[in-house]
Amino acid sequence: MLSIEKVEDLDTPCIVIDEAIALANIRRLQDHCNEAGLALRPHIKTHKMVGFARAQMDAGAVGINCQKIGEAEVMADGGLDDILITFNILGADKLKRLRRLAARVSRLAVTADSTVTVTGLSEAFADAERPLDVLVECDTGAGRCGVQTPEQACDLAAVIAASPGLRFAGLMTYPAVGGAPDAARFMREAVDRLAGVGLDCPVVSTGGSPDMSGAARLGVFTEYRAGTYIYNDRSLVERGACGWQDCALGVLATVVSLPAPGRAVIDAGSKSLTSDLLGLQGFGHVAGSADTAIVSLSEEHGVLHHGPADSYRIGQRILVIPNHVCVVSNLFDEAWLVKPGGEPVRVGVDARGTVS
Amino acid sequence: MLSIEKVEDLDTPCIVIDEAIALANIRRLQDHCNEAGLALRPHIKTHKMVGFARAQMDAGAVGINCQKIGEAEVMADGGLDDILITFNILGADKLKRLRRLAARVSRLAVTADSTVTVTGLSEAFADAERPLDVLVECDTGAGRCGVQTPEQACDLAAVIAASPGLRFAGLMTYPAVGGAPDAARFMREAVDRLAGVGLDCPVVSTGGSPDMSGAARLGVFTEYRAGTYIYNDRSLVERGACGWQDCALGVLATVVSLPAPGRAVIDAGSKSLTSDLLGLQGFGHVAGSADTAIVSLSEEHGVLHHGPADSYRIGQRILVIPNHVCVVSNLFDEAWLVKPGGEPVRVGVDARGTVS
Repeated sequence: MLSIEKVEDLDTPCIVIDEAIALANIRRLQDHCNEAGLALRPHIKTHKMVGFARAQMDAGAVGINCQKIGEAEVMADGGLDDILITFNILGADKLKRLRRLAARVSRLAVTADSTVTVTGLSEAFADAERPLDVLVECDTGAGRCGVQTPEQACDLAAVIAASPGLRFAGLMTYPAVGGAPDAARFMREAVDRLAGVGLDCPVVSTGGSPDMSGAARLGVFTEYRAGTYIYNDRSLVERGACGWQDCALGVLATVVSLPAPGRAVIDAGSKSLTSDLLGLQGFGHVAGSADTAIVSLSEEHGVLHHGPADSYRIGQRILVIPNHVCVVSNLFDEAWLVKPGGEPVRVGVDARGTVS
Repeated sequence: MLSIEKVEDLDTPCIVIDEAIALANIRRLQDHCNEAGLALRPHIKTHKMVGFARAQMDAGAVGINCQKIGEAEVMADGGLDDILITFNILGADKLKRLRRLAARVSRLAVTADSTVTVTGLSEAFADAERPLDVLVECDTGAGRCGVQTPEQACDLAAVIAASPGLRFAGLMTYPAVGGAPDAARFMREAVDRLAGVGLDCPVVSTGGSPDMSGAARLGVFTEYRAGTYIYNDRSLVERGACGWQDCALGVLATVVSLPAPGRAVIDAGSKSLTSDLLGLQGFGHVAGSADTAIVSLSEEHGVLHHGPADSYRIGQRILVIPNHVCVVSNLFDEAWLVKPGGEPVRVGVDARGTVS
């Protein structure tokens, strides 16, 4: 359990990470994927730290997943050298950066869901030493990016395979929460169609921490991308994916006001916790509280309402398990890493703010 | 009107600010406050830039408002020297920083709503060369921090006035939206009570961009704090406080996918636009669109649904007026400032990430 004892003298608000819990979370999902015969490709958007990306690789990951070229550049600087960017990369600036990035890692892959994206990638890589790996992104129900049918997936794969400078590297989806079975049906049909036109599909990649335990049973997937599992958060606890004891990151805050009975105000607001709800009520969980809700946030204040089972004093430190940890770590340039038995150590959130 | 023409070659996502619109917004509220006989103390949390803070002072502001010591430190580095921090400052680290900050500006003031806060401030400033100005924060209906009654305000003011190292400097409130009349009644009674015990109340400070045009008529207030007015945003347009042509900041994004009819996906998600809704539907306004809604955000994607009146192409740049501009500027280390007639100039968001 993330403990407040070793961190309660730190200035607030700040993020504190229990290294032992994070490493145990890395180990647990890696073991699960190993047993299930799934390659694990952790999404570094959650932690944005080279150190944790290396720990994920050391545990047995096949490579890492990024969402932005900027994230991938920071990870490449840190020695990570098998990187999938699950994004349609468009525009001259980004294509130049992608080309430079490809030249300094062992393997770079991206996703595409249109011929516009594929054409841009091909023009940028036509004279490259090695082809760029491109996976077809499939919308299997989440309603975000992706081709809409297995037939379209097969057609775009053929375009990629015929494009100078590119190699068709597989299929990728980010399923709707609970939508892994639908995603599996879509992917199975697409793989069959690809086989029918003589195209090998080396990777079928799925993802999302909420569904991570069910994907293996669905057969067709070869790779799993998950991000949140390294820290976990309130949304995963509330969905039953883990317990509070598995939450590695908390926002340390100070009670700065007790203006009225049942109300406490902390120095962490939407610029520390974000307004992400992910379908939940309230803006985070106060660790160890019995009957407290974070009912509203302004930018630098969080308002707690509590029942008689909880009490607070002005100046007291509390730990908040955020609703959505990935957006929280992106707000802090630095974090405090609590080593087993040791003092908190200040570490940089290396790829924070890499917006493009 | 914020124009996409001069910025559409920039890499995305990024924030672009039309300097002429921002300066006109500064001028308009300053003129309003001048006519109304209200001192204006702009809240720099919205822009976090020394340059705009100076522009606000040059226009006639009496000083600036910060929410964090870190913001105030950056502003003091930039030469701003009359600073009010509207926050209960607690804890040894912060009190030391506050003392150092006070020594290098002409005037520093903070707010307090409890004797715990006042005691800490007094201990930190008891041997200071100049007393620290402390205003009593009053909860006039917003349900955040603040003493609950005019009587409590008067009592705490007396404690401040009797505390070594401190000077009672007035009353402060952040009213509920639309709650300025309630705030005025509370403050009037508190001022009367203070007079009754022989305490002068030099400042009665209120704030909030949504209500900025009505405060002057209520008589009791001497000072107005507003932040969002410099850029404006969708929340202020929807509340009728301004028009789209008054919005100075937009998030420039690229359409990266057109996966299905009526759906477009952009490269700006919750890590660029935030999930702040402020009571609205959707996550921002696409400038110039007739029938487009930003229906969902993931971290690096925004999903747009649109009717036949709008059309998009992959690679197209769009400008999004965010729901809440103050949390958006806090996500970007840099912004592009578009000067009248000139090229966009890259500027730092000086106090971004000053969490404590």
